[in-house]
Amino acid sequence: MRRRDFITRLAASAGTTYAVMQALDLIEKPATAQKSPFQLQRRGGSKSIIILGAGLGGMTCAYELSKVGYQCKILEARERSGGRCWTVRTGDKFTDTLGQTQTIRFDRGLYFNPGPARIPYHHVTIDYCKELGVPLEVIVNLSRQQYIYRENAGSLSGRKVHAREAIADIRGYISELLAKAISKDAIDAPLTVEDKEKMIEFLRTYGGLNPDLFYKGSSRRGYSTYQGAGDAPGVVDDPYDLSALLELGFAGNESFEFGFNQQMTMFEPVGGMDAIAKAFEKQVGRFITYGAVVTEIRKTPDGVQILYKDKSGNVKQETADYCICNIPLSVLKDIPSDFAPDMKEAIASVEYAVTGKSALQFNRRFWEDDEDIFGGITQTDQDITQIWYPSTGYLSQKGVVLGYYNFGSTAEKVGTLAPADRVALSLEQGSKIHPQYNNHFEKGFSLFWSTVPYSIGGWAEYTTDVRTTYYPRLNQPDGNIYLCGEHLSYLTGWMAGAFESARLVSTQIATL
Amino acid sequence: MRRRDFITRLAASAGTTYAVMQALDLIEKPATAQKSPFQLQRRGGSKSIIILGAGLGGMTCAYELSKVGYQCKILEARERSGGRCWTVRTGDKFTDTLGQTQTIRFDRGLYFNPGPARIPYHHVTIDYCKELGVPLEVIVNLSRQQYIYRENAGSLSGRKVHAREAIADIRGYISELLAKAISKDAIDAPLTVEDKEKMIEFLRTYGGLNPDLFYKGSSRRGYSTYQGAGDAPGVVDDPYDLSALLELGFAGNESFEFGFNQQMTMFEPVGGMDAIAKAFEKQVGRFITYGAVVTEIRKTPDGVQILYKDKSGNVKQETADYCICNIPLSVLKDIPSDFAPDMKEAIASVEYAVTGKSALQFNRRFWEDDEDIFGGITQTDQDITQIWYPSTGYLSQKGVVLGYYNFGSTAEKVGTLAPADRVALSLEQGSKIHPQYNNHFEKGFSLFWSTVPYSIGGWAEYTTDVRTTYYPRLNQPDGNIYLCGEHLSYLTGWMAGAFESARLVSTQIATL
Repeated sequence: MRRRDFITRLAASAGTTYAVMQALDLIEKPATAQKSPFQLQRRGGSKSIIILGAGLGGMTCAYELSKVGYQCKILEARERSGGRCWTVRTGDKFTDTLGQTQTIRFDRGLYFNPGPARIPYHHVTIDYCKELGVPLEVIVNLSRQQYIYRENAGSLSGRKVHAREAIADIRGYISELLAKAISKDAIDAPLTVEDKEKMIEFLRTYGGLNPDLFYKGSSRRGYSTYQGAGDAPGVVDDPYDLSALLELGFAGNESFEFGFNQQMTMFEPVGGMDAIAKAFEKQVGRFITYGAVVTEIRKTPDGVQILYKDKSGNVKQETADYCICNIPLSVLKDIPSDFAPDMKEAIASVEYAVTGKSALQFNRRFWEDDEDIFGGITQTDQDITQIWYPSTGYLSQKGVVLGYYNFGSTAEKVGTLAPADRVALSLEQGSKIHPQYNNHFEKGFSLFWSTVPYSIGGWAEYTTDVRTTYYPRLNQPDGNIYLCGEHLSYLTGWMAGAFESARLVSTQIATL
Repeated sequence: MRRRDFITRLAASAGTTYAVMQALDLIEKPATAQKSPFQLQRRGGSKSIIILGAGLGGMTCAYELSKVGYQCKILEARERSGGRCWTVRTGDKFTDTLGQTQTIRFDRGLYFNPGPARIPYHHVTIDYCKELGVPLEVIVNLSRQQYIYRENAGSLSGRKVHAREAIADIRGYISELLAKAISKDAIDAPLTVEDKEKMIEFLRTYGGLNPDLFYKGSSRRGYSTYQGAGDAPGVVDDPYDLSALLELGFAGNESFEFGFNQQMTMFEPVGGMDAIAKAFEKQVGRFITYGAVVTEIRKTPDGVQILYKDKSGNVKQETADYCICNIPLSVLKDIPSDFAPDMKEAIASVEYAVTGKSALQFNRRFWEDDEDIFGGITQTDQDITQIWYPSTGYLSQKGVVLGYYNFGSTAEKVGTLAPADRVALSLEQGSKIHPQYNNHFEKGFSLFWSTVPYSIGGWAEYTTDVRTTYYPRLNQPDGNIYLCGEHLSYLTGWMAGAFESARLVSTQIATL
């Protein structure tokens, strides 16, 4: 049973959430208990709630609270729901804060998720997909056929190294070195004789070592000529030099998929990530006012007052007992409000990830046809950083590849280019890895999250200091105003962060 | 470009296959050349070919050779095509060689692949799926949430160890030990100072080490209480003891997915493996006579003569210019024939894998609902050896789990039980890992390949001796009779072995 289920179930019935949370560390996790569905207890009656933002957090609050009788209204600045949970398809238009407009012209049936694109197996996101009937398919977050391609990495520079080659080789060398050190008793660790023997045995298998404990290559790294019928046992090339592999410096690439949020099994909704947003919209769409740009957030003696501009530019207002503010802090900090000074300081303290993506439609799936790559992510030290191959539409004719996905100063550098230039950069750098880019490119799209209206950044990025100093304040209501969203969680950048926050805030309000 | 494409293309135009194969080691593999489709050259005209067995190998021969004008007939002992490429569904009946009959009663829409169940990304199987329009989905061959569950493994015996926990911990300890040995200059290897620094840096990331190069656990092993919103940073448990991990002895479990044929990305056809057989049947079904049990294989002065019993038990005969014999050697060795003595000896020399599987339908996907397991394989030292969770129908109500998949003496032991007892064993042992088995089991099915009529074994298993001594002979025609199948390849046990063999044999015949 998940912590969150305990929290929310107990919190809903037993009072304050924080006390319950503290108690929870004492509760042991049962091995295979059936999870309880999240269910607020009816308590607050028909109080009114104004929710700012129809992203996943805001819609989840409306979904959960309206189920138990709260009167919910949602104001959404965009003309659509979902916020960063977003999929672009042909005909869609996107204009950034600099006024640069792109019209998406992918073929019908093709799409791209500019925001979140993966769902880890252990996230609450999956529970909501089940509850709301969103079909999922596996997103291949690692494919052993994907490349590590570096331009500044010693002797393997400019070489398309398959992940499986580098991985098999480095594990082989690590195992060889350690097994030999152990067998020579050069290890200064409290290992019994039996432990040492078992460790060497482990390393022999783990590394694919020969009887003398040398790593001399292995079919794990693949065949340069494949195995086949008749006289075709396959040819395995010699491993890369250890020095060359160390220069390649791919530890981060390899261990990327060790992370708890990046491990297989990962999912994506069939047909695009916005299937999740649409599923919520189906439940709470009747509460949403689109094109409503919040201009002021005010406290009243017994509730809240929100001013917003509607589609026609007219200023309107809503009042309610409570406000759940799902607006990213990067936007919220510039909205006039009655937040207390310490809350304003906390809101302004959180940095947002600088990140961008591009999408490239090709008229032939050459990565599959020519290179046996099905899903997965090629990693490069070029500005584009990553190339994602689609995990959908296998063996079909066309496909949309993620042409870059970068962060930080690289993203800033690329993001400040005009959209067409970003696409051109994706093509230029990507074509070093896939020369087929030049013959098969059809259409592109790119965005830089720092210039996406009403988002202004990728996701909340907490330094340890900000997490310690300001995060607790952000999690406390200010009067009757509760903040909500991925930024109010330890799962920043994940849709699950928004869901968890929405469940927590909903529980807090429902237990008042 | 793949070796097999070179082989078949060159062989088809340039004469004998073996000479070409030898020459091929001189040809360098282009980085991203477009693959040529396999295409026989029209040459033999309208010679007649009798094919024994409508498995994948036999049907592929008929498909490729009929395209270029050969007259093909296929005799198939079963009432269906596909051989071991097989899917069972409700209403299907299966009777083994001991006369034990099972009627499959899975719910409509649920199914089970008793034979091959996975397709590696680099196999020719995928090319045929593309050519014949067989939709594929990812089969999750590794899920970090799957368990390692051992009953005789020291202090972790009887504990459901998540793969990610064991993997994160052992990589951590390996990295710690090696990094320390290197930093103490205890490694006897030609590493420069710079190499050593880079190696330690690599291990720091690879193992998730702390600044002092100790492994003290990591979120990679998962959280005992998950990260969430508000005051929920997640709780990471201490790692398992290194000694305990070594006793667990899971090197084989972990490195299983390092193998070139087991790496991600892997596929399965949507709706069942027999979609591949059906796709070929659509192409060549008109050539197939079902229920035709071959009783004699004879040479004639200018061709071949085949005697068989038809459905009514009448002996019939077919003559042709050539015979392609796709019958497993385990069956073929007992069919009266005119094979030369050395060929008969070779046929009788090859052992077949002893292996079996069971399938269990549950009325609730508790592995998903309760345990966050989506696909993947739990490994155990019990007789059942493996539990496979379905990689299809995620988040739906019911599912079919593979209850055991074992080999060798364990398979022999389980396989000799009555089918119902094998299912009972799957339940009894599996319920130690998933107590939910007891409440949610509905229907089972099991088979033991040694008692599957017309297969009599899993797949060809070559010892090095047999491969050296007899395999070359099996690959040479005996008169006008050519053997074909997975057993004539280095991809034994894989459908690709049958496809590669069929392409090779077809090429040999077409270039005569």
